[in-house]
Amino acid sequence: MESLNVIKVGGAIVEDDAALQNLLLRFAALPGLKVLVHGGGRSATRMATQLGIESRMEGGRRITDEETLRIVTMVYGGLVNKNLVARLQACGINALGLTGADAGIILSHRRPPKEILSSEGTSRTVDFGFVGDVDRVDDQVLASFLEQGIVPVIAPLTHDGKGNMLNTNADTMASEVACALSRRFRVTLTYCFELPGVLRNPEDPESLIPRISEEEFHLLKAQGIVSGGMIPKLENAFEAIRRGVEKVVITKADYMDGSLGTHLVQTV
Amino acid sequence: MESLNVIKVGGAIVEDDAALQNLLLRFAALPGLKVLVHGGGRSATRMATQLGIESRMEGGRRITDEETLRIVTMVYGGLVNKNLVARLQACGINALGLTGADAGIILSHRRPPKEILSSEGTSRTVDFGFVGDVDRVDDQVLASFLEQGIVPVIAPLTHDGKGNMLNTNADTMASEVACALSRRFRVTLTYCFELPGVLRNPEDPESLIPRISEEEFHLLKAQGIVSGGMIPKLENAFEAIRRGVEKVVITKADYMDGSLGTHLVQTV
Repeated sequence: MESLNVIKVGGAIVEDDAALQNLLLRFAALPGLKVLVHGGGRSATRMATQLGIESRMEGGRRITDEETLRIVTMVYGGLVNKNLVARLQACGINALGLTGADAGIILSHRRPPKEILSSEGTSRTVDFGFVGDVDRVDDQVLASFLEQGIVPVIAPLTHDGKGNMLNTNADTMASEVACALSRRFRVTLTYCFELPGVLRNPEDPESLIPRISEEEFHLLKAQGIVSGGMIPKLENAFEAIRRGVEKVVITKADYMDGSLGTHLVQTV
Repeated sequence: MESLNVIKVGGAIVEDDAALQNLLLRFAALPGLKVLVHGGGRSATRMATQLGIESRMEGGRRITDEETLRIVTMVYGGLVNKNLVARLQACGINALGLTGADAGIILSHRRPPKEILSSEGTSRTVDFGFVGDVDRVDDQVLASFLEQGIVPVIAPLTHDGKGNMLNTNADTMASEVACALSRRFRVTLTYCFELPGVLRNPEDPESLIPRISEEEFHLLKAQGIVSGGMIPKLENAFEAIRRGVEKVVITKADYMDGSLGTHLVQTV
């Protein structure tokens, strides 16, 4: 099987022009087949503020009411996605911007309201609104684009097949796309974020954990060494490995070629 | 050669939910290969107003400064395009939203500032800003999408190949796409707008001109029967016929199958 890179980049990087240009050049330089999945949360929050709309979050996830859905559709699918595509075209990459609705690549359903338990043991119901949980990725159409020399650039939006766009977490999009493409390719999924990988001490880049198994992850979580937003990222990542992704790497955009970072490995 | 419909719809229709649903059903019902090109000017103007940005027009064309470019990229490429795509998917059409940057389908260059002559004979320089004049449409990649059963849904945005998105008139986009695809298909280009076609008397739908040649157009223009925004629309349309488009029809969305409207014919 041919190898393929799925690279996820966060919303923060697209806000900083120098960092973005660096990222795009590194992405353009990656050999072989590749897919870019991007976020855009910060740009969406800024646009919401400009429009006088409050951004409501719950456990780090955006509550997507109708107004917010319009904003994320504009910002993720339009502003961020098209600027990435135009700039990749300028780097000689034949980028094609996609949401889950385009060519029907990612179908989802609206997440039903969820019971959330507080630390005090009380529960309340949270409705995330127009948020989509992924049902199906069409690996065939993505593969046909890749075979045409096209590089998919995927925005964190899906559709429900009934005419509605839905907001979907970008890490989840990357992982779902990577899993689906694992049926056809040897996939490396790389999450780029601000740090060079999972650190024992967030203040010390030298404390990078170069390899981590799922067992070790549970141990580090119990010890409080891995915490916060890194937990769902790693849980997503290990699920991707169980579902057929060959390698998952968590690193900084500078090392998206895998030269540095935390490599997730299957429990032996 | 196989036949293909290129349908252009204005920005007004996407603002009215019932009219839009009617349009989408009619578009979905069209047999054979098809492409949809859409506008979105009214949505862009409304978004600009909400963001406190003034919309400046010159002869009916938007002046696109940096802020306005961000807005049209969001609104045309994100909000309008993705909602059309999601709704077409719900009608069973495998729609793929595209700007000129996506898969490099339409390359343009920024329009240089132009001398504009006033009716008093004085001249002034107008800079339309980030507006793109089309250089090249990649009919090969569009044809490959069509062969895969994909229906391109094209937003009025292009790119300059240097990393910049540019704002391009939707009528022009439709005509350029239709001309390029005429190399491979027998193309009918249909402009949908508020009226059933070119009328001798705008107040009277019965005064529809069913067929018009370029000679007759110049006569009607001299007589003042054709005026205003219809002039550039017809000029564009006759140019498309000279460049290989088989048929051009100007009509209302209700008659996009060509059952009613003004059919443009070559001067015999």
